[in-house]
This record gives sequence, structure tokens and C-alpha cells, in this order.
Amino acid sequence: MSEPLDPGGTIGILGGGQLGRMLSVAAARLGFRSHVYDPGPEPAASHVAHRTTTADYGDVSALAKFAESVDVITFEFENVPSETLDLLEGHCPIRPNRRALAVSQDRLHEKRFLRDLGLVTAPFAPVEAVTDLDGAIRATGLPAVLKTRRFGYDGKGQVHIGSSDNPAAKLAGIEGSPAILEGFVEFSREVSVIAARGLNGRISCFDPGENVHRDGILRTTAVPARLGSTERTEAALLAGRILNALDYVGILGVELFVTPSGLVVNEIAPRVHNSGHWTQNGCFIDQFEQHIRAIAGWPLGDGRRHSDVVMENLIGDDVDRLPDLLEEPGIAIHMYGKADVRPGRKMGHVNRILRSA
Amino acid sequence: MSEPLDPGGTIGILGGGQLGRMLSVAAARLGFRSHVYDPGPEPAASHVAHRTTTADYGDVSALAKFAESVDVITFEFENVPSETLDLLEGHCPIRPNRRALAVSQDRLHEKRFLRDLGLVTAPFAPVEAVTDLDGAIRATGLPAVLKTRRFGYDGKGQVHIGSSDNPAAKLAGIEGSPAILEGFVEFSREVSVIAARGLNGRISCFDPGENVHRDGILRTTAVPARLGSTERTEAALLAGRILNALDYVGILGVELFVTPSGLVVNEIAPRVHNSGHWTQNGCFIDQFEQHIRAIAGWPLGDGRRHSDVVMENLIGDDVDRLPDLLEEPGIAIHMYGKADVRPGRKMGHVNRILRSA
Repeated sequence: MSEPLDPGGTIGILGGGQLGRMLSVAAARLGFRSHVYDPGPEPAASHVAHRTTTADYGDVSALAKFAESVDVITFEFENVPSETLDLLEGHCPIRPNRRALAVSQDRLHEKRFLRDLGLVTAPFAPVEAVTDLDGAIRATGLPAVLKTRRFGYDGKGQVHIGSSDNPAAKLAGIEGSPAILEGFVEFSREVSVIAARGLNGRISCFDPGENVHRDGILRTTAVPARLGSTERTEAALLAGRILNALDYVGILGVELFVTPSGLVVNEIAPRVHNSGHWTQNGCFIDQFEQHIRAIAGWPLGDGRRHSDVVMENLIGDDVDRLPDLLEEPGIAIHMYGKADVRPGRKMGHVNRILRSA
Repeated sequence: MSEPLDPGGTIGILGGGQLGRMLSVAAARLGFRSHVYDPGPEPAASHVAHRTTTADYGDVSALAKFAESVDVITFEFENVPSETLDLLEGHCPIRPNRRALAVSQDRLHEKRFLRDLGLVTAPFAPVEAVTDLDGAIRATGLPAVLKTRRFGYDGKGQVHIGSSDNPAAKLAGIEGSPAILEGFVEFSREVSVIAARGLNGRISCFDPGENVHRDGILRTTAVPARLGSTERTEAALLAGRILNALDYVGILGVELFVTPSGLVVNEIAPRVHNSGHWTQNGCFIDQFEQHIRAIAGWPLGDGRRHSDVVMENLIGDDVDRLPDLLEEPGIAIHMYGKADVRPGRKMGHVNRILRSA
């Protein structure tokens, strides 16, 4: 499918969480239908999707039916199993492509890919077994962070190793090895660039946002980020280099550390990204619509920023603050429609509009 | 229901066209579910609604089931049959209320209601039979417009009477009398105010927009409207007077003629309004979300305008221009998901963002 998808066409979305939900809404705004595929009962996206399939990612028959009912497939999470993709890819295009998924599914592959592109990352070394630890620590120094290569998110699958720790015990403590050891980067702040690339190869970056994490989970993103004009340009150029190298189509999130010697790439996510939620109330066209435009083969939209925004995640019982939040001037509320409040669960977010840009 | 509706609650929407569709999306954004009721097959709103009932507005059993499944009922069109409302109102609140509907369903009632509030309207007179015509013409002068009292929209059910016309023949030509004869108002432009009133009685008006019609159908709305500060204040005050008089909850559209001697009220619509679509890309909180907040008993949101916008309706084969529109900078596309293109059918709209305010 190299022609633009006509309105009325159907976007397939793997994963029905809040990202799939907001992608569904953006698809509808452009006149598309959405078909969400998720293993869980009543996923958040099912409230707004035109159609929902509830089946496992290994269900051959359900996957085939899903693929036949859609015109293009995208996903809200990077850990889509390869076997799922094997089954889907004969039927219709998967955007972003499998290479982007493969690179970002494995922290070691991702770091090597970025380094080979000439970008700066934290020092890193693979750790497949306890015998690799000494060499890895020599490469990264201490303190360092030991991470599973796959399936980590929101700080899960990570342990900190200090100079007084027993590295072997730490390795035993994380499940899901093989692992990667990553050295620390001294940084003044973390920013992210939400970048889009269209099917025609054109690229558009949203303004960088400045992120604050707590307990490994993103709490706030503020735009504009405190960056100089050189850093801003550097951020857009490196995002462009990644997008082009992957022949990428859609939205890519790039997390960056700001250091005195320049920008260091922390990680990339081949999907719409929590740190891009501010675009819903800060830009003419937001990240969700930009992603749908790209994967539908449409020209990218105008992602200019019209306002300064601080996005704040509502996590767990943060939702109890809703009555107060609703009274705040200059606030936009985005709830995900999740019934059960659990600690650490993203229930919604708010965008505080500080002023018109 | 005087308490705010909790997220997870269900909004019932009578009518599944584009307005119901955009209301559904706004409801989802705030964490609500939506249940759309429409007699037609696969209404536009069904693509994004959590649930859809396809049944006639006179289907007692379907209406009862619908009402039992929702927490509050609203509507996308003013011509909801009274019998439908009779069946629904025992079950849950209808917002805006029935009085607002009754007033706006009948042009004569509406004009009298506005006049009794001290607002200025075009001269008017009821025409129930051909014998009323002479007196009516003496009241309004000629030229005048003869309109059915009920069920007119987009210029339907209206005929122009000039001084050389035979009024009786014109009356015979419109179906659905009783009718109303309305005199002409010399106006420089038409503007509309989209006004919201919350369950707590607080009122918030969006900036007035300036409307251009063609063939009786709205083509464009531009903000800011060309109005002086006195006219702006007058517009908000008269909208507030209407809202308070009706003990109104939700969004009300007020169409106004701008004349040298002040603002003349053309008509009111007890629902989200086509001339308020610009708010989607010009304001922090748009008219659809403002309506959902109001009927859910939530505080109104911040409807400040951040950008200058011109909204243009895509009517009939205007959609053929989509490829060009997609290439325009500063444009946001909103498609309604309608499969069949027909002349005069509203297929979508675009908001051109001219500059940040």
C-alpha cells in the first residue's frame, strides 16, 4: 500500500491501552475506522474503537481475520511478539516497520544501532552470564544500571549497582536475562523529541519537552524544554538520522539526556509516547493524528506549538484529585476510561496550558 | 442526578450524526462511555461510541432499555419528538431540559420567548391559514420569509415572499404549516455565540464567530468576528439571559445579526452548533467537551481562544479537495466517517489556523 488510504479505510491497532485509545480517536477524526486487537477483556481503546478483537497475540486464526479486516497495522507497544508480526505481515503493511520494532525491542541492539549511527549513548556492555560482569563493569564504570535486554518499561527489569554491591547477586535478582549493563550519564535534565516521518520520507519534529520521572515513571513533561538553539537543532537532526536509518513511518519518541558535552540518547520508542501527550493541547496537530496521517500514507500535518504546556500523568490514586483539577483554569483533562485504580497505573493525564506561545 | 457524574459513567446521545460523533469523542476524553441512539443504520457516531442502539424514536422498549443503560441523556438535534422525551424523562435527566427543546422546536414560540426576554428579533407574525397572510404582511413588511414553525434546518421549509409574489401560492408551496412570517433585517454580518451553562449556573461564552452561509447552509465561521467591544459584551449578556431564563445546562448556539442599532437574535439551537466547530482547534476546551462537562454536572472548562481560526464546512463533493487540503500548512481536518457523498451533505470540516492569538 503506497497510495494514501482513503477516508473510510480501517486502521488496525495492536494493543488497546490508552495509546491505542487516543490513536483510535485520531483515526476517527480523519474519517478512518479503527480495529483494536488486545488479549485483555474490555481494553480502554474498545470504548472508542469501531471494532475490537479480544484474542492472544499467538492466536493464528484471530490474527488472520484481524489482518484481513484492516488496511494498515500499527501498534501501541514495542514488545509485539515476532511470531505475531510473522503472521500479520503477509496480509497488509505494518507501520512503523519490523526493523524499527526489532531494534527497540532489545536494549543491546538499540544501543549498538544508535552508536553505529554516530550518536552518543551511555557506555554499555552486554551481560549474558555472571562471567561477563567484570568486563562489563570495566566498560561502564560504577555506579551502573543492570537492565534486562527485553520487556522493560516504567523502570521494571532494572537494578542499580553501586561500588559496594555484589554484582552477581544483582544479576540473579533480575529475571529475563540476557541483560545489558549501562553506565551513568551526568545530565542536567532529560528531554524528549517526538518525531514523525511520512511515507514520502518527510520529517516533522514537535518541540522538545522536558521530562521529570519519579519511581521510574514519567510524571511531567514541560514545553518548551530549557534548551539552547544549538541543542534544539541537534535534537531534531539526530531524530531525523534515526528515522531515516530505519526508513521509519509514524511517530518515534526519542529520550535524550542533556549534558555539558551535548545530547546523549537514552532510548527510543517506535510509537506515540507519553512524553508527547502535551501536543494534544499545545499543537495544531497532535502526535496521535500525526502518527495516523503517516501510517495512512497521508502528508504529515502541521505540528506547530501554539501554547506552553505542562503535562502531568495521573497515576493510581492521583485520580482522586479530579474534582480539584476540574476547577483549575487552563487545564485539559484526559481520562483513559480504566475502571480499576491500581498503584502505578496510568489512569489519565492533564495538560496545563500556561500561556499562548 | 445533581452530583457530578463519575468517570466511567455513561452519556446517552439521541442522534448519531457528526455532532453525536464529536460529542462521543469528547465524552471518551473525559473518561465517560457513550451510548448513541439513532434510527438509521450505522450512524457516523457509531464508529466511536461505546454502544449504539438502532431503533426508531417511537420504539418504547428500545427507549426504555437505552434510558436504563445511561446516566444522563443529551441530543444532537432539536427535533426530538415529545413522545420520545415523555418516555425517557422518567428514567434519567435530559440535558438541556425539555423547555429549551420545546422553545427551539417551534419558531413562533422561540421568537415570542426571545421577545418576552427583552431581546430584539426580526418582526414576525404567525400564519396558520391563508386568511392570516394580509395581517402578517402588515406586521412584517415585504420582502419577508415564510417558514414552517417546525422541522426546518439548513434553509429547508422556507420561502421568500417579495412584493410581486402571490403570498397564498407561497404558503401552499411549503408543507408543514402552521407557519411564521418573518420580516427582513438589514444586517452587516451574521455572528454566533456558542455559550455554555453548567449545572451550578455558571456561564462561559466562546468568542463570537462570524458566519457565511450559501444556499442556506453554513459555509464558514471566522474568529475573531468583526465586532466592537460593546457588541461583544452585548452578545455575551444576551446569551446569558437566554441560558438563565431556560435554566439551561449544556451548550447553546445563538445566531445574531449585526445591525447599526445593535444585535438582533436570529435563532437559537439547544445543542452544539456547526458554527462552534472552530473551537476544536482554536480553544483550550472545545464546545463538545464543554457540553459534556456541563451535562455531566462537572465544572465548565476553560474555553479561552488561543488562535485565530476559519472553519470551512466540506459539503458534498468538497471532499474531493481532500488531497489538496492535506498539503496545506496550518490546517486541521475533521471527517465524519460518512460513506455516501451527496450534494448538500456535510461530510467534514476543516479548521484553518491563521495565527496564535
